[in-house]
Amino acid sequence: MWIILVYDVGEKRVAKVLKYLRGYLNWIQNSVFEGELTYAELQKVKTGLKRLIREEEDSVIIFSSNISSDYKKEIIGLNKAEETKII
Amino acid sequence: MWIILVYDVGEKRVAKVLKYLRGYLNWIQNSVFEGELTYAELQKVKTGLKRLIREEEDSVIIFSSNISSDYKKEIIGLNKAEETKII
Repeated sequence: MWIILVYDVGEKRVAKVLKYLRGYLNWIQNSVFEGELTYAELQKVKTGLKRLIREEEDSVIIFSSNISSDYKKEIIGLNKAEETKII
Repeated sequence: MWIILVYDVGEKRVAKVLKYLRGYLNWIQNSVFEGELTYAELQKVKTGLKRLIREEEDSVIIFSSNISSDYKKEIIGLNKAEETKII
């Protein structure tokens, strides 16, 4: 499945969430990850996130689709993922 | 077209970008918008954003698809868009 995941979590939990998600998806911008996961992997990521975040304060939105070929991605300005790789 | 737009822009430009995008898309989380736009509207939004942001510092990523029915959206934790409506 093709995934876009965006999060908005309290400052204290940002580093942990970022590190956790880097194990499964590609970081593409501040608080935004993208990638391919199997259904089982997605369930695992969701369970892991529920342990890391405070559901009464934080928010994670996961967009998923079985058809990754139909979407288009355009970047205006910097490609922050590329920048990070260069650094 | 179905659109997800995420931005990471300098602090000085956040308020302007937010206000501009609210005219076209639905705010769903910190720096994340979602919605339906025609191709012509999307071109207009892109042109408008290029005027508002500094392309050498800021980043806007636009995911678009012609098939909106195939994606699924899940929220873990707060639905910040709903919260804002309640407030």
